[in-house]
Amino acid sequence: MPKLYVVGLGPGAGADLTQRARAALEESQVIAGYTTYVDLVRGAFPEKELLVSGMRGEVQRCRAALERAAGGATVALVCSGDPGVYGMAGLVLELAQDMGLIDAVDVEVIAGVTAATGGAALLGAPLMHDFCLVSLSDLLTPWDAIETRLRAAARAGFIICLYNPCSHGRPDHLAHAAQILLEELPPTCVCGIAHNVGRPGEGARVLTLGELADAPADMTSVVYVGNATTREIAGRMVTPRGYQVRS
Amino acid sequence: MPKLYVVGLGPGAGADLTQRARAALEESQVIAGYTTYVDLVRGAFPEKELLVSGMRGEVQRCRAALERAAGGATVALVCSGDPGVYGMAGLVLELAQDMGLIDAVDVEVIAGVTAATGGAALLGAPLMHDFCLVSLSDLLTPWDAIETRLRAAARAGFIICLYNPCSHGRPDHLAHAAQILLEELPPTCVCGIAHNVGRPGEGARVLTLGELADAPADMTSVVYVGNATTREIAGRMVTPRGYQVRS
Repeated sequence: MPKLYVVGLGPGAGADLTQRARAALEESQVIAGYTTYVDLVRGAFPEKELLVSGMRGEVQRCRAALERAAGGATVALVCSGDPGVYGMAGLVLELAQDMGLIDAVDVEVIAGVTAATGGAALLGAPLMHDFCLVSLSDLLTPWDAIETRLRAAARAGFIICLYNPCSHGRPDHLAHAAQILLEELPPTCVCGIAHNVGRPGEGARVLTLGELADAPADMTSVVYVGNATTREIAGRMVTPRGYQVRS
Repeated sequence: MPKLYVVGLGPGAGADLTQRARAALEESQVIAGYTTYVDLVRGAFPEKELLVSGMRGEVQRCRAALERAAGGATVALVCSGDPGVYGMAGLVLELAQDMGLIDAVDVEVIAGVTAATGGAALLGAPLMHDFCLVSLSDLLTPWDAIETRLRAAARAGFIICLYNPCSHGRPDHLAHAAQILLEELPPTCVCGIAHNVGRPGEGARVLTLGELADAPADMTSVVYVGNATTREIAGRMVTPRGYQVRS
């Protein structure tokens, strides 16, 4: 059966690529994806046919990859991070069904390191206990739902990892989220920001929830809000899991 | 400065290892960790010194790795999945501080594919929207806190990913969690179970929340509880993100 791999490249410029992902790229005749992500791998696979598309072309991109696979080529649709976390994996499966290709193309999702854990590694160990991911983009989700999730997560003691803390259209999402969280958590709550994870200029900074609203963040940033047990250890953000209590 | 890498191997037997993790293992003189995980990589690095320890020896294992690094060796402490997700990264940093080594050993965490996204790839695309991870192990967390998190996450529309759905000591954790979630979500809610992710015998099954309490799960299982939008597509578990609405 024709094969379409939906491949996670990891958060960075290639160092987080898994062996499984590399093998899928090697096996494919066509590499498809958003220009920026295809550019990350084209140098390593100069003999592959490329199928690139621009920003916001998600549906067209996935359709083109499915059609190419249905035509007989083995295709790798590449995504940053993990294709199953705010990526293309779900859309590919939805479209495969809509296009009548769900039984004609074997869609295989290949997980990658997602930005949440890549950024966490830079900060130290903020996500050691129960945590949640919330995207602050209200392009596809009403802001009310985002606010409900932030409050629920903070009250229940989850560590919260925020994707898309700001965008060109809405630079104030992070400040807005911080204000909501300050109604549920103390201003001393330990937070962190990682940016350019795995790319040139990568970095991380530990700060407090009180400082978060005014903190510089951009489209490459991932933001972490600790729970009541999270603390700073020598400039790192660490949430204990409790092993020391037991030992 | 002496170096201690805390390295994620990914969920399986090696195919999900990243290039960054491999480079850290190559650079290290000593590979430390729980026997089962060290066994996964010892074959590829026969020349390395091994520092292995048994189950539940978390504190001793991290201390030994820190001491070996402080003595001058470059050490890689290996973990399954991602060391920052229910792994050893936090404990290493806590102990480094307690042992007075936080400024003497450079601890670098190397992220890996975590079981949540590795299992999600097997199931299809369950985690495409805001989601949370909850461990059902009450060894280190009171069951009340686990129950509060399950209810909060379900009410706020998170997809829920459950780690440690059962153990030898408590085989009924998953059934208990399913009963709680059935008070918040309909029995038709789409769920999934992945097991032996990345290992021989790996598999995944889509089922409903009503069926979850009686579903077979073991210590290798990761369980997914969908939100109101999650659906089954040809035997896969898929949560739409909404791209199709916009296009």
